[in-house]
This record gives sequence, structure tokens and C-alpha cells, in this order.
Amino acid sequence: MSVSQPVIRLKPKVRPQTFLHGVPWVYDNEIVTDRRAKKIAPGSLAILEDAERRPIAQVAVNPGSRLFARILDLDLKAEIDQSWLERKLARALALREALYDLPYYRLIHAEADGLPGVVIDRFNDVVVVQANAAWIENMLSELTVALTALPGIKTVYKNASGRARGLEGLDDVSEVLTGALPDVPVPVPMNGATYMADLSGGQKTGLFFDQRPNHAFAARFSKGARVLDVFSHVGGFSLAALAGGAKSALAVDGSEAALSLAAEGARRMGKTDQFETRKGDAFDVLAKLAEEGQTFDVVICDPPAFAPSKKALEAGLRAYERVARLAAPLVAEGGYLGLCSCSHAADLSKFRAASTRGIGRAGRSGQLIHTGYAGPDHPLHPQLAESGYLKALFYRL
Amino acid sequence: MSVSQPVIRLKPKVRPQTFLHGVPWVYDNEIVTDRRAKKIAPGSLAILEDAERRPIAQVAVNPGSRLFARILDLDLKAEIDQSWLERKLARALALREALYDLPYYRLIHAEADGLPGVVIDRFNDVVVVQANAAWIENMLSELTVALTALPGIKTVYKNASGRARGLEGLDDVSEVLTGALPDVPVPVPMNGATYMADLSGGQKTGLFFDQRPNHAFAARFSKGARVLDVFSHVGGFSLAALAGGAKSALAVDGSEAALSLAAEGARRMGKTDQFETRKGDAFDVLAKLAEEGQTFDVVICDPPAFAPSKKALEAGLRAYERVARLAAPLVAEGGYLGLCSCSHAADLSKFRAASTRGIGRAGRSGQLIHTGYAGPDHPLHPQLAESGYLKALFYRL
Repeated sequence: MSVSQPVIRLKPKVRPQTFLHGVPWVYDNEIVTDRRAKKIAPGSLAILEDAERRPIAQVAVNPGSRLFARILDLDLKAEIDQSWLERKLARALALREALYDLPYYRLIHAEADGLPGVVIDRFNDVVVVQANAAWIENMLSELTVALTALPGIKTVYKNASGRARGLEGLDDVSEVLTGALPDVPVPVPMNGATYMADLSGGQKTGLFFDQRPNHAFAARFSKGARVLDVFSHVGGFSLAALAGGAKSALAVDGSEAALSLAAEGARRMGKTDQFETRKGDAFDVLAKLAEEGQTFDVVICDPPAFAPSKKALEAGLRAYERVARLAAPLVAEGGYLGLCSCSHAADLSKFRAASTRGIGRAGRSGQLIHTGYAGPDHPLHPQLAESGYLKALFYRL
Repeated sequence: MSVSQPVIRLKPKVRPQTFLHGVPWVYDNEIVTDRRAKKIAPGSLAILEDAERRPIAQVAVNPGSRLFARILDLDLKAEIDQSWLERKLARALALREALYDLPYYRLIHAEADGLPGVVIDRFNDVVVVQANAAWIENMLSELTVALTALPGIKTVYKNASGRARGLEGLDDVSEVLTGALPDVPVPVPMNGATYMADLSGGQKTGLFFDQRPNHAFAARFSKGARVLDVFSHVGGFSLAALAGGAKSALAVDGSEAALSLAAEGARRMGKTDQFETRKGDAFDVLAKLAEEGQTFDVVICDPPAFAPSKKALEAGLRAYERVARLAAPLVAEGGYLGLCSCSHAADLSKFRAASTRGIGRAGRSGQLIHTGYAGPDHPLHPQLAESGYLKALFYRL
């Protein structure tokens, strides 16, 4: 905290206790947004004061965003510097090392790991940083040094493709910050399967760690099963199922690149003979498979976010219902149907209702045997319930 | 469906589709409860008709209960007999055999397994039946034959201690229906631990399978840890933690009988040196441990249902908050706190809010790393969201 640091002030009606008790976000309508506050440069560190000018916390400010300030530290004396970043990283790493045998996981999950707007995935010696807030963009060099100070990390890659960067006024230029990014897809071991991740390819062919426990759950009932993995991406559920002893797996996706990474994963697992892919629109392929009279013991659908915002909620829920309605007829009697949603706006009960309705409209009924979320390397900030975006429902029909 | 079967009729405003789409319960205010309907003997099978006298389903009736009828089969021609029970059991068994290597699980979880009001737990060759509805009480001999027809099941024990039996007008006389009940506690293997279950001792010293996945999750971060297991019952979390490599475990419970079963489990695991028990009121013991300045790497609290009904909700949430407030100070920096609720009335978001508040009032803050439910041998009927009573929250402080 330096003398020259800017100050922002809460409106009189806003209780400072809210933030002292852990709420990490300050919205623009909670702040006295006078000319001085609006002039603060995006990403600046500032002091948050209550209406009586008592300092509450150190924050990162972005006057262009509804999310005006993010709490960085309630300790007013803390220096927000490289060593501060190192402490956050060490704490986050300790959790992952307790949970995972191998260094493949989400290392930093934003607010819940004390670094608002920052997401870092680790692939052994490579970390992929999504700097989705202006304050961390300003500290990328300190972050890079702090990351490579951790044992085993050599390469730091900035993936700037996230939609959130635009909202913060940041560019979309991805780049290697230090080290060397492998120019071929790298193998990632999870749940006994081998996934191929194209780390520079961005969302389309990268890898998500969030579904790991749900992949593992599906693998439990996939022994000897014929598995259909719809919206398969690089083969998340199908390769885990093959590792768990599935008889065969068919992966369906719209991306040829993703499917060929999935096939390469199957090849490295020695499962090429049991693995097939089909490129196409998932809804079309589901309908086609039904026409062909095909059935599967396990069907999993892990679509993109159909309801990313409140505005898209109704249409999104209809899309989830449609997925369930098209997928249920493909499930053999006594088989399993896994339905996933990564939509923030569709909460668990709405998503479950849409899914159950779709199954019913297909003339089927089921037991709900498991509800899964993102894995523990995606912790939640307890005050931000909405950060629990991923839901996976497993029905037995 | 026989000619002599009684008939109950929906009121005109009640949509028959509700039941055709899977809702398994018919409340008394949805039924024309004329004198004839009220005279039906508890547990009778009957035909549910819509207001136009079109038959909808076969139901089991209890005119003394608000839950007037339970749907047994939408197939009007199905005979509800021993072979019908056998088909339900076979289907339920197939799910458990797909999920578990060893024959220890909840075999029937009521409505979700198609047998309303019936709960059956399996301990290898012994099954413990809770017949919580009058219709199944009337069919206990058929159920017993159907159960012993399954491979490996020899003894059927009726545990009549459940509170629900009183509501259905049933007695509380537990008895062996066939075979022989072991008169000593039996070892039950779960998650690599050995639990001792006193099958005839009822709830106090029996065994619950529902927490199995949450025990397993806690074991993941218990390697080398000092673990405190509060409301330990027969050692659910502490013995799983020891099996997972915990350095030590302290089990706290109010029941001497439960603690001595826990100690016997630890002995059979060869972990006696690492296991301690403390008998007493959990709140008192938590306060006492804080006074003694003790800390633990992992603290788990799995209390009885503090909010079993809507009426008890406010007091129950205060009790959950108090558990969190007393437990959090005992967690070492960077350690883990697991908080469980088996209260129907406290939904996930209310329970999470109370827990988070309690942690905050203890001056601590945390990440929420996992939300767990009952295991997949406790499936949910998708139309009965309230049947998801068990919640387990894991925080890292």
C-alpha cells in the first residue's frame, strides 16, 4: 500500500462487512463512481474504503466493467508483488499435490485460489495462463517468474482466447511468456486414459480438467459396455471408458481436429480397434443413430454451454431437453445416460428438470444415480455459488 | 389387476399426466376421499383412475396417511406378486454389481428402485429390510422368498425400528424372516477399511452405506494427516482415513457402543496404535479440544439430522453453523474441514450458507473443494428431489 495508490469508496448503504466476510467482488453500483474513480487506469491496484473513509481492502480496479473491483487482500499492509503471487501459488499447489499423483491439473482457479480472474492449467512442465483480468495482465512478468520458481515448471504460455479478456479491455494475442511450447500435441494421463492436448490450439483442441471425476464415475459402469460419447471433444468420456474396460466407444463431435486427437489417444492406449469416431452435428448424428436402430450400454452427452447467460436460459433448457430426448432412445434397457451442462445460467434443478423431461418425452424413465461437479482442482469461492457451472447427471434407464 | 380390486379416483383438477410422467406419489388432497376410499385397508393394492374413470396405474393405498397412494406399476396388467418383486430385485442388483466389487451396499432404495417405501441393505449373505410401507409388510413372505432366490443371500432380517413404520400404522417388532442373524458384529469392507456392523442393533450401531464416496474423498487428502472424526458413529471417516494413510485419527461420539465397534475396526486393520476415541457430547468435545490447543490436518463432522423437518429448519441451521464455528478453529492452516448434513429440510444452498457463516465467525475462510452426496447405491427418483437428503461439503481452510 503506497501513498499514491488510488482510493475507491463504498456507497453509504453498502455494508463493509460483506467484503470483510469474504465476498470478493465489488460492483459498480456499490461504489461512488465519481470522476476520480472513473479515471483509474484498468488493472490498477487501489484501496477500498467504506463510506466513512475507513480502509477495508486492497483491490484491483477496472472502471470499465460492472465488476468494478476485485478484492485482492484484506491485509492493507500486504505488498501485492511477486512474492505475494508466490505465496498464492504455493498454497494452491499444496492442494493439488495432496489430490493428484501426477502434475496435470488446474493449478489456479481464480477467486477460489485467491487470484481473481486468473486461471492456470498445468501440463507437467508447461502451464497455460488465462489472464482474464487487467490487474494480472499488468503483473504477467512477476507471475511468470513466480510460476517458473515452482519445481518442475519450465514453460509459461499465455492463452488470450478467453471471452472475458475483451470485457476487461485486453487483447487476444496468445504468446509464450517463457520456455518453449511443444509444437505437437502432448499426452496427458488421466483416469488411466491418455488424452492428446494441443496446448497452443486454444479451447477447440486443448484439454479441460474439470470433468475428471465424472469421467471416472462413468468408467465405473463402462466395463464391457458399448459407449457413445457425444460432443466428445478430444475423447473425454470415451477414452476413460475404454481405460475402464469398455468393449467399444464411438466419439461424436463437430471438430475433425478434436476427433483426430481422440483417435491418437486411443492409438496410444492400444485401443484403436475398439474406438470409432463420427464427425457431424451432434443432434443430427443422434437422430441418425436412432434411425439406424443402434443402441449403446452407456451414452454420455457433454455439450457446449447452451445457456451461457440468463438471456439464453429458456432456449438453453430446451436444447438440454432435446439432447436428453434424442439420446435416451439410444440407451439399451438397464443402460446408463450421462448428461452434462457447463452453463452458468442453468442451475442444477432447472437442468435436472429439463433432462428428466427429455427422457420422459422419449418414453423412457430412469433413476438418478449420481450428480457430479467439476473436480476439486476447480474449487469454489464459498461466496460465489454461481462459479459452480459444471453439472453432470447420471441416469440409469 | 383383479375384478375385486379397490379403486381410487383423482379429483378433476389433478392431471393424470403427472403420474404417467413418473411422479410416484398421490397425496390425499388429490384423491376423491369418499367413504369407500377411506375404508380401503392399509397396504391394499388398488387401481388409480382419473376423474373420467380411466385407469392410470396400480397403486398401494394407505388411507391413514397424507401420502394416500404410491404408484407400483403403470402397467395395469402386471401381477404384483413374487415374480414382480424378483424382477425389481434383479434390476436393482444389476446396478450394484456394476458399481461394486463386493456384496456390501444398499440393494433397494425405495421409490428410485421401484419399490416404494422399501429399503434393503446387503451385508454379503445377510439383507436387512426396512419395510416402511403397509403394502410391503403384507408381502414380506413373497419378498423374503424373492430375496433368498438371489445368489448368495441366506438371511433376511426385518428391522422395524424406522420412524416411518409408525406413520403407516405398522409395529416395531424386528425379527429374522429367514436364515440366521450373526449375533456378533460383522466386518464390512469399504474403501480399504474394515467397519464393524451390529446388524441387529438398529441405527445406533448398524452401518450406513450412504457416505461411502465421501469417506473415499476425505481419504484422498488424509495421507499423513492427523484426522478428527466428530459424530464418528462406528468410525466412518476415521477408519477410511487410516486406510488412506492417515497418521492418526481421533473418533468422537456420544455412543460407547459405536466407539467400541470403531476401535474393533481399527484393531482388525492393524491400526490400533494410530486410533483413539473420545466419548462425549460433540459440541463439548469440540470446545474442549480448542481449549487444549489441539489442531488437526483434517476435521470431519457428520452430525445427526439437525433439521429433519421444515419446523426444525431454523434451529437446525443454527446447529450446523455452530458445528462449523467450533470445528474450524481446530483445523490447521491449509487443512481440510468436511461438514455433512443428512437433513431433508436443509437444502444444499442453506446448508452451505450456514457452514460458510460458521467458518467465517470462527475467523477463518476457505475454498469449497467438493460437494458430495449419497453414493450411487442410493439412487434418486428424478421426480423426488427431496429424497436427496445427504450433503457433504469439503472446505480447505
